[in-house]
Amino acid sequence: MSAKRVVIALGGNALQESGAPATSDAQLAVVKKTSEYIAEISEKGYEIAIAHGNGPQVGRILLASETASDVTPAMPFDVCGAMSQGYIGYHIQQALKYELKKKNKDLPVVTIVTQVVVDKNDPAFVNLTKPIGPFYTEEEANVIAKEKGYVMKEDAGRGWRRVVASPKPIKIVEIDSVKRLWDSTIVVTVGGGGIPVIENDDGSLEGIAAVIDKDLAAERLAEDIDADVLVILTEVEKVSINYKKPNQKDLDLISVAQAEQYIKEGHFAPGSMLPKIEAAMGFAKSKSGRKAIITSLYKAVDALEGKAGTTIEL
Amino acid sequence: MSAKRVVIALGGNALQESGAPATSDAQLAVVKKTSEYIAEISEKGYEIAIAHGNGPQVGRILLASETASDVTPAMPFDVCGAMSQGYIGYHIQQALKYELKKKNKDLPVVTIVTQVVVDKNDPAFVNLTKPIGPFYTEEEANVIAKEKGYVMKEDAGRGWRRVVASPKPIKIVEIDSVKRLWDSTIVVTVGGGGIPVIENDDGSLEGIAAVIDKDLAAERLAEDIDADVLVILTEVEKVSINYKKPNQKDLDLISVAQAEQYIKEGHFAPGSMLPKIEAAMGFAKSKSGRKAIITSLYKAVDALEGKAGTTIEL
Repeated sequence: MSAKRVVIALGGNALQESGAPATSDAQLAVVKKTSEYIAEISEKGYEIAIAHGNGPQVGRILLASETASDVTPAMPFDVCGAMSQGYIGYHIQQALKYELKKKNKDLPVVTIVTQVVVDKNDPAFVNLTKPIGPFYTEEEANVIAKEKGYVMKEDAGRGWRRVVASPKPIKIVEIDSVKRLWDSTIVVTVGGGGIPVIENDDGSLEGIAAVIDKDLAAERLAEDIDADVLVILTEVEKVSINYKKPNQKDLDLISVAQAEQYIKEGHFAPGSMLPKIEAAMGFAKSKSGRKAIITSLYKAVDALEGKAGTTIEL
Repeated sequence: MSAKRVVIALGGNALQESGAPATSDAQLAVVKKTSEYIAEISEKGYEIAIAHGNGPQVGRILLASETASDVTPAMPFDVCGAMSQGYIGYHIQQALKYELKKKNKDLPVVTIVTQVVVDKNDPAFVNLTKPIGPFYTEEEANVIAKEKGYVMKEDAGRGWRRVVASPKPIKIVEIDSVKRLWDSTIVVTVGGGGIPVIENDDGSLEGIAAVIDKDLAAERLAEDIDADVLVILTEVEKVSINYKKPNQKDLDLISVAQAEQYIKEGHFAPGSMLPKIEAAMGFAKSKSGRKAIITSLYKAVDALEGKAGTTIEL
C-alpha cells in the first residue's frame, strides 16, 4: 500500500501564540514548534500537504499598508493575501525543512503562491460577513464608504470596519503543480484560504477583496489531490457537543449523518467550529474511504492512529 | 532535440513603469504587457523559468512596515523579501497564465517562495553597499544605528539610509522543486534574488538582511537547472562600450574573454550593467554550449533567434 496522503490545515494557534507580540520572531518561534509535530507526522510515513490560515497576518499587513498610505500606495486586499502567503510560507519551509533534517529526512518543503477561484454569483457577495483591516469611527467609516465604495459595519462595539464576502472555494488555480510535487515534496498551498479571484468572461482571473475559509479551501485541496485524510487542527483536542455546558460530551468518531444532526441542534458555533465540521463532512462524504479529523496540533499524530481527536467518516 | 531551456531574468522595468505611481494596479498593468512577450517566447517552444528583481517593491513594503511600526510590529527585511515574492509572483502567474491561454497554451505558471543561501564569510558583509528602506536625517540615523545596530550611510546627498550586504548566491534552497516542475510548468523563482539566508552550524537556515543581485541569482538558477540560455532583460536592446559617448559601439556577439577585457577597460557601470555582464559571463563559461543574452523585453524573442540583443558565449 502506498503512503497515506494527508492534508493538514493549520489553525491560527499553529502560527502565533495568542497574546504574544505579533512580531516575525514570535511567529517563527511558534512555527518551529509546529514544525516538530509536522515532521513527526512525516516520519510516520505520511505524505503531507499543508494549508494554513492568515487572519492575523493579513490583517497586520493591511493595517501597515493603510497606515502608511500617505507615504506609499496602500495595497489591495488580494495583494496583502499574496504577501501573507510569502511571509508564512517562508517561515514554514525554513522551520519544517530543519525539523525534517534533524530526523534525517531530506524532503523538500516549498510554498506555492496559490489563487483560488470563487463564483462571483456566490450569495456570500450579497451578505458580507467578514470584517478586515483597521477599526474606524463611524464618521471615518462613512467617508471611506463614500470614497472607496467599501461596505463598513459596526463590529461588536469595538468600532467600524470594512466587511467583505466569504465565498466558497470553487477551484484551486495552481492545483496541477501541487499534484505534480506533492508525492515528493511537502507543499504549502492555499495559504489563508488562497488569494481570492473571480473568473471574467474572457477567461482572465481578477483578484478581489474576499476571505475564503481556510478549512474549506483545505477540503477542496484534499479532494483535488485525492488525499486519504483531512486533518483540521484547532485549539481543542476533540469536537464537543453541549460545549462548555455541564453536559459537554467530547466526540471520538461520528458519521456525517450524526454531524448533520448536531449542526441542526445548533452545537457548533458559526465562524468557529461550524466551518471546520462542514469542511470535515464535505471531505468524508466526497469519496468512500476518506475521513476527516479535527484535533489539536499536539494530538495530531495520535489522532492519525485513531487514538485521539474527533474523526468524521461517511 | 528537446526544447531549449531558457531562464529569463526580468528587470525592474518589466514590473513597473519608471515614474508611474507605485500602485498594485500600475504594476499589474505592466506585468500584463510583460507577460505578452513571455507568452510569445513560450509559444516559440522554449521552456521557461522566470527570475525577477524586487527593489522598488521590497523598498515600499519595508517603508510601509517601518512607517506603521507604532501600530503593528515592523517586519524584518528577509520577511519583506518573502512578501515581495508573493506580491510579484501572484501578478506574474495571474497575467502570464491568461496570455498563454489566449495563445491556446494550457501551461501552469507558479511561484515558489525561494530562499537562497549566502556565505556568512562573504567579504560583502564587511563592506556594506546596498541601501534599503526609508531616508532619515543624520540625527535619526544615529539613533537607529545605536538602537538597532544597523549600519547607516549618507546616500548621495538625499539623506541617511540603512545599508546591507550584497553577498553572492551560493545555493538555491528550493532548487529540487524547481527542477521537478520546470519542464511542465513556468516557474517563477529566486524573486528579488531570493530570500537571503545563512546556514548555521547546526544546519538550520536563518534569514538575514541582505540583497542578492537578481541577475547573479538567475545565473545560479540557470546553471542548476541546466538551462541552455540565460536571458537578462534590461532597459537597452544591446550592451555598449563607450556608452553614451560619441564613439559608443553596440555589441552583437562577444566572447567571455572580450567581456573580461571590456570590464578591465571600465566600460560597464557597477551596480548597473556590470553585474549583468558578470552574470552572463558566469553562465557562458559554466559549460560548453551555454550562452547568455542581454537585451530588452521587446527584443527578447528576436534575440533568442540571434537577430537582436547582445549574446555572450565562451
